Amino acid sequence: MDPEAIAKQFTDFYYNTFDNNREALRSLYRDHSMLTWEGQPVAGANGITEKLTTLPFAKVLHKVTTLDAQPSSQVAANLLVFVTGLLVVDDSPNPLQFSQTFQLIPDNGTYYVLNDVFRLNYGA
Amino acid sequence: MDPEAIAKQFTDFYYNTFDNNREALRSLYRDHSMLTWEGQPVAGANGITEKLTTLPFAKVLHKVTTLDAQPSSQVAANLLVFVTGLLVVDDSPNPLQFSQTFQLIPDNGTYYVLNDVFRLNYGA
Repeated sequence: MDPEAIAKQFTDFYYNTFDNNREALRSLYRDHSMLTWEGQPVAGANGITEKLTTLPFAKVLHKVTTLDAQPSSQVAANLLVFVTGLLVVDDSPNPLQFSQTFQLIPDNGTYYVLNDVFRLNYGA
Repeated sequence: MDPEAIAKQFTDFYYNTFDNNREALRSLYRDHSMLTWEGQPVAGANGITEKLTTLPFAKVLHKVTTLDAQPSSQVAANLLVFVTGLLVVDDSPNPLQFSQTFQLIPDNGTYYVLNDVFRLNYGA
């Protein structure tokens, strides 16, 4: 499967899970995974899951605007995934712009998230 | 040096070079480097340099708003760098928001760019 197809499959699953059953994102991370959420670093599947499930909004919907993917290693099938999109929070009429980067690492026929960096994009 | 310090040093150099002497960015890329610019994939130092030096603006200024960094390998000192910022193009009074991800690979005491993904962030 080409990088774009894997990235599309991953982000479809990731944001659908985030929006509907955030606790289930735990399976995508490992003990050595890293998340930087709005500048705050969190490490490990447990810490990352706790961070994601305690964000200060109840209802959230991600809409992906752009999706780019590149192989990120010369020796393994690692994948860099870069997303920009809109975040609709608690039915607010004003979606927030966000951008997010993942690095996916192949593992037994699937992928886990080693790197995850999320930022809201505020206007000038 | 910690990841944030390396990322700061790299982005200071990268955007200063981009804004003042774009051709000199060539030294940061290798033959197997990848750039995805607004969804367009370009490969190799020569192709990337040609792309960057022929972008449709004469004068450009990058202002970094946020900078995040994470180690991106368990076996090497690779570094994921994530930037959001503003792009002032040809003295336009309306800066454009951008986000950009790099993966830096250590090489003989310095770093080169293996991955580079750039996107402008348009409003909702």
